Amino acid sequence: MPVTVLFAAPPRLWPRYEAHLVAALAEAGVDARVVTSVDDPAQADYIVFGPGGTIGDFRPYARAKAVLNLWAGVETLVTNATLVQPLCRMVDPAMTDSMTEWVTGHCLRHHLGMDQHIHGLAGVWDKTTPPLAAERPVTILGFGELGQACARKLAAVGFPVTGWSRNPRSVAGFACLSGPGGLEAALSTAQILVLLLPLTAETENTLNAGTIARLPRGAFVINPGRGPLIDDEALIAALDAGHLAHATLDVFRTEPLPPDHAFWAHPKVTVTPHIAAETRPDTASRVIAENVRRGEAGEPFLHRVDRGRGY
Amino acid sequence: MPVTVLFAAPPRLWPRYEAHLVAALAEAGVDARVVTSVDDPAQADYIVFGPGGTIGDFRPYARAKAVLNLWAGVETLVTNATLVQPLCRMVDPAMTDSMTEWVTGHCLRHHLGMDQHIHGLAGVWDKTTPPLAAERPVTILGFGELGQACARKLAAVGFPVTGWSRNPRSVAGFACLSGPGGLEAALSTAQILVLLLPLTAETENTLNAGTIARLPRGAFVINPGRGPLIDDEALIAALDAGHLAHATLDVFRTEPLPPDHAFWAHPKVTVTPHIAAETRPDTASRVIAENVRRGEAGEPFLHRVDRGRGY
Repeated sequence: MPVTVLFAAPPRLWPRYEAHLVAALAEAGVDARVVTSVDDPAQADYIVFGPGGTIGDFRPYARAKAVLNLWAGVETLVTNATLVQPLCRMVDPAMTDSMTEWVTGHCLRHHLGMDQHIHGLAGVWDKTTPPLAAERPVTILGFGELGQACARKLAAVGFPVTGWSRNPRSVAGFACLSGPGGLEAALSTAQILVLLLPLTAETENTLNAGTIARLPRGAFVINPGRGPLIDDEALIAALDAGHLAHATLDVFRTEPLPPDHAFWAHPKVTVTPHIAAETRPDTASRVIAENVRRGEAGEPFLHRVDRGRGY
Repeated sequence: MPVTVLFAAPPRLWPRYEAHLVAALAEAGVDARVVTSVDDPAQADYIVFGPGGTIGDFRPYARAKAVLNLWAGVETLVTNATLVQPLCRMVDPAMTDSMTEWVTGHCLRHHLGMDQHIHGLAGVWDKTTPPLAAERPVTILGFGELGQACARKLAAVGFPVTGWSRNPRSVAGFACLSGPGGLEAALSTAQILVLLLPLTAETENTLNAGTIARLPRGAFVINPGRGPLIDDEALIAALDAGHLAHATLDVFRTEPLPPDHAFWAHPKVTVTPHIAAETRPDTASRVIAENVRRGEAGEPFLHRVDRGRGY
């Protein structure tokens, strides 16, 4: 009898995922049917989920062996008390690539002072040249899979990279700092700061008036992580005061970012509409299928969330 | 008796170079004096030169053992019939780094569609996501030291790179094409085209109406090489017709680019003021000093120009 995989991610994603999920499950050798609804919640063997998905109360899905998220961030799911099944984050190689490209691109953009050229110098031949990337230290807060992948590309381009994480880590080739003391040191050298922390109670407002003050004057802030990692008012105050040069933000407390939000029109803020790391249906479907296969074979799931830690 | 190194590059560069040249020559173990003028041209043992330098007629500098250029491009020097001494181009590791950063940054910028975000989406949450770099082929015309260095960084970021050169080359890890037939193939796949050819009689107007037509519709052109590699009118026509998406130009037929030039105001052209690859006084001075040392020791010069080839 085929296993039932319930696609309970936002319905708009179904046309993009259906064929890829069916193909990936077949490739993984799993006899499965993928559906967008079930007559009885207890029929669902696996639940594919995503923010804005169709389930709020997971209790009726009593037989489901796992909830497989299509995105890396699981902050809304870990706080859902009705969800007791194994929960897995998405670690999609294509999503990782897309994140590293976005981060490297925006680091180089700020490093090279591109905005003035893109806006146009209006006929003024101003030959100010940037320093070399080797002279432009980047700090990444959050040094897990995504942070390390970004660090490798930034280093390949020439930037010296420091990674900071809550718990000590050792990653060959990079300065690794951790804990509150390490955070101060990591901020103090960061001419470009990249936020890639998971969102938890501990990480909310990591970038606030106090931590911003630790950054060198003229630093750039890049946030492809989660909106609430930043205290928005403190950020705007530091930009207005000239302490920070610019903020490039891909994520926000409310998404879509409301049309009247101050970020849209602020001359020192660049808004990108949560595009840094888009899950790709083909590669993500293979990760989902592999986890269904593992579930059926009694093997441990990939990328399982530690609820105590929150990610 | 010390050798006399005549600094005949543009005088504005002297304050930036003096201390570095003196230090580098001392480090290289050469007994030298660096001067900006000589009583008698025949006193100069070596001439440090650069575009806009103070010598037009090299004949009086009869004893000079070499002319050492501060820049990579030597097109104005190879056509100077009065210059018969060995001529060396600059291959400065810092200049190479700066070129690779500029090229990689602008490739990522166009790849990610950053300009719309930098100009601002005015409150519109448009989640159009770019493809992955792996799906965005880049072609580099000119696959010498600089072209290959750029290719390595572009590949590290994820782009598939094709290199084209006039004469066949084989560079591990890259598709290498050459000659007129190879040029058509190299252009046909180039979603981003980077021009890094030396300027010679053969390479002038490499990008013209005919070659532009070979590029896929929507291609981006990036020129950090030399202005005359492009037929400016053909470029503007292709941008206006929508065949090309954008051109980012660092070099021009006339520099500084005249304030009334059409490139400045064209919405599909980005002008950067010849900043992609600035020679750095510290590292370049070491290259100059090493060549003076070689000249005194009777060893072959580094980066000597082949006048027949023109670079």
